Amino acid sequence: MLVTFNPIGTVKIEDGWYYIELKEKFFEATLGLDEFSHIQVIWWFNLYDSEESRNYFVMDKPYKKGPEKVGVLASRSPIRPNPIAVTVSRLAAVDKQKHRLELGYIDAEDGTPVLDIKPYHPSEDKVRDVVMPAWCRHWPDCIEANEGFDWSKEFNFPAE
Amino acid sequence: MLVTFNPIGTVKIEDGWYYIELKEKFFEATLGLDEFSHIQVIWWFNLYDSEESRNYFVMDKPYKKGPEKVGVLASRSPIRPNPIAVTVSRLAAVDKQKHRLELGYIDAEDGTPVLDIKPYHPSEDKVRDVVMPAWCRHWPDCIEANEGFDWSKEFNFPAE
Repeated sequence: MLVTFNPIGTVKIEDGWYYIELKEKFFEATLGLDEFSHIQVIWWFNLYDSEESRNYFVMDKPYKKGPEKVGVLASRSPIRPNPIAVTVSRLAAVDKQKHRLELGYIDAEDGTPVLDIKPYHPSEDKVRDVVMPAWCRHWPDCIEANEGFDWSKEFNFPAE
Repeated sequence: MLVTFNPIGTVKIEDGWYYIELKEKFFEATLGLDEFSHIQVIWWFNLYDSEESRNYFVMDKPYKKGPEKVGVLASRSPIRPNPIAVTVSRLAAVDKQKHRLELGYIDAEDGTPVLDIKPYHPSEDKVRDVVMPAWCRHWPDCIEANEGFDWSKEFNFPAE
């Protein structure tokens, strides 16, 4: 069985500003979204998609402080059986003229296809009591704590 | 442009227990996942997928206490342009013999196709300071606070 999706828009990065540019027909589906501070963006790792990468299941030492081998489904690697990304972004503004959502940031490249957008709901998305493996417990404990954290000391694989 | 995904497994519900049963070849990709308390499950709203539902963009009064009209991308409705679901579940156990992940709970039906699994990372997934519209600010402020909350008083559409 194969499942097919049709992108609703693309990520645009211009002069350090981050947007989702929606195809015009989908823009009305954002009605009311501007009242939420954060959204989940579901996008396609198009730059890492190949038959080979979809059949690569165990990584060698992907995290500098982690174990020798980690499965791709135990990581956020872009290389995975179905290269889907989920990014939580701050929704800075909604531009009705340009049918764009202005984001605080998104860890995707310019031109990346966007598959879905959902409002961030703490009741569904925010876990109070999280347990992580010992080797990554020093990572930031929320999105806002990311600022200034040096991720280059953590990853050996391309960051999402 | 169309994007195609191949499910890695299915949701199984047996006697009130919730599982993801992975296709055997993908199971090794979960190596190390058992050290995380929570996972993101990306699945396909197969029961709500049709050409018609993918072209339905604005809902009439989907939330009992909300506005008269809400866009599907401003909701977690299963009816949306690309019917992708993201559920955060507690990972209760990993069964290597049956290549199953036992979950605390998932809001999907038995037989639902699963597209991807990621470890829940607070640094990427947990927003400390969230703003919601006034009509839903009384919703639980984290997943653990859901217990006992009466969602039937909130929704007019099928819950994710």
